[in-house]
Amino acid sequence: MGDNAFNRIAIIGIGLLGSSIAHAVKSYGGADEVLLWDADTDVRARASRVVPGQVTETAKQAVSNADCVILCTPVGVLASVTALISPDLKAGVILTDVGSVKDKAASDMSANAPVHAHVIPGHPIAGTEKSGPEAGFASLFHDAWHILTPLEDHTEEYLAAVDTLEAFWKTLGAKVETMDAARHDRVLAITSHLPHLIAYNIVSTAYDMESIEDGEVVKYSAGGFRDFTRIAASDPTMWRDVFLTNKDAVLETLGRFSEDLAALQRAIRWGDGDTLMKEFTRARGIRKAIIDAGLDTDEADFGRRSNDSSEKS
Amino acid sequence: MGDNAFNRIAIIGIGLLGSSIAHAVKSYGGADEVLLWDADTDVRARASRVVPGQVTETAKQAVSNADCVILCTPVGVLASVTALISPDLKAGVILTDVGSVKDKAASDMSANAPVHAHVIPGHPIAGTEKSGPEAGFASLFHDAWHILTPLEDHTEEYLAAVDTLEAFWKTLGAKVETMDAARHDRVLAITSHLPHLIAYNIVSTAYDMESIEDGEVVKYSAGGFRDFTRIAASDPTMWRDVFLTNKDAVLETLGRFSEDLAALQRAIRWGDGDTLMKEFTRARGIRKAIIDAGLDTDEADFGRRSNDSSEKS
Repeated sequence: MGDNAFNRIAIIGIGLLGSSIAHAVKSYGGADEVLLWDADTDVRARASRVVPGQVTETAKQAVSNADCVILCTPVGVLASVTALISPDLKAGVILTDVGSVKDKAASDMSANAPVHAHVIPGHPIAGTEKSGPEAGFASLFHDAWHILTPLEDHTEEYLAAVDTLEAFWKTLGAKVETMDAARHDRVLAITSHLPHLIAYNIVSTAYDMESIEDGEVVKYSAGGFRDFTRIAASDPTMWRDVFLTNKDAVLETLGRFSEDLAALQRAIRWGDGDTLMKEFTRARGIRKAIIDAGLDTDEADFGRRSNDSSEKS
Repeated sequence: MGDNAFNRIAIIGIGLLGSSIAHAVKSYGGADEVLLWDADTDVRARASRVVPGQVTETAKQAVSNADCVILCTPVGVLASVTALISPDLKAGVILTDVGSVKDKAASDMSANAPVHAHVIPGHPIAGTEKSGPEAGFASLFHDAWHILTPLEDHTEEYLAAVDTLEAFWKTLGAKVETMDAARHDRVLAITSHLPHLIAYNIVSTAYDMESIEDGEVVKYSAGGFRDFTRIAASDPTMWRDVFLTNKDAVLETLGRFSEDLAALQRAIRWGDGDTLMKEFTRARGIRKAIIDAGLDTDEADFGRRSNDSSEKS
């Protein structure tokens, strides 16, 4: 299989991530061959136009001779999808996923995979608000973190499998990090799950007021709201599953958020400008850390994007 | 004064908006001459490098012969700034502002301006998260809404002044809309003020968890959190004043937001996927309305920005 990590990989679930992996392998390598399958007939038909000749009619055709199977489905169906393909997985296969919740992904895949498969849960911190096979593109994983949460398996074979999977993702441009699944779920609850829940919620609140305000919420959305609608455009099925499967960490983080918000609410009601000033000022520190770490640019998109902001004299 | 709406304008407060107006007039017209003043000596010095020869030593020098004075300060100091410049305003001058809260702006300016001034509160729905005179640029107002909230003054002179001010902002590229101040404050509470409060709050919540998670909140911020830090980087002084002066509308909107969030929290706790699915799906409708209205692009910034999102199979 030359320099590639894998001879053949199979992708189950052809949405933004599944099709992006196929595009990325074509551009950067990592596998000699990629086959894809999706449970939805319509998605398979659309995917055939995006990656011609690579979409199979059955899951079995995709996974039978694969060295690595990547499940790109919502977290909620990982158990049933693993059970579906399990009889056709070859010995020594690597079984991984791209789901946003890793503790549940690990148990659902492990419980349904054959013992001769190496289950290595994974999560690319990459994506857009777009959905579907047409949304995929080769550079999605460039410079993005890819988190692997290996099981408690210290056999030589398993560790070698983790190394191979890590090499694969690096070929696609990702930076790979390994951590405990529970820790992953706690960190992502604040960096990703809560932000999405809040975005969905504020858009929902606005939706109910929209009928009162005659389209003005949309018209004046440049004042900050627009950025939330972008996040809230993400795939509903995926996010429903995230919140249902990372329940404890999300509820804990949400509890802290609500306490903090109640404190700000109280400061507004009582005209406590000092408290507002203190909280707003320290928020800038985290932004600076993100800029300093090179994780976002400070220069981008003047003109196109804008927040509402007049200025300090 | 040729084709320009004004002979001389004065800008009080030289931050992002104040300096952007100066840049915009230089590029597109609207006034023959622009003078600027800021209460802060350091800001005046910095502004002198950005717009050489236009920054005055005193407020009086800037406003004395101005046909239009634009207050670009935080809303909280509009009363005192108006009182400061009031003795030097010439008869028939237009006095406007760029603050995010219009009811309070109207009363604070009216109460302190001379009777011979035409007070016309205004608000450009434009900005970035940057602050300071260096952050200004000429195209900031291009295609952005500019909302004017004229007083209940139906004299011919006042109405003519509103027309002149409208023409000025259109010259800078803005789309001008007129509405009642109270309505403005209600609409902006949901499209701008609440989103900023929420962004500040989630960053604050993360800040407290950050010490636990060893820098991982910053490291994995691409999962959605990063977009909130951008909004939360906005000027703290300005936003403190917004929340203190638009208290009623913000508290009302925040109340609705918290109720809706409690319902989502309950759905997560009880595993009610149908409720989550329903709320998440309708959020897409508003996003579509914003795209359809041409108020954001759907194509932008693959690769640079990313939300965390795996995909539906």
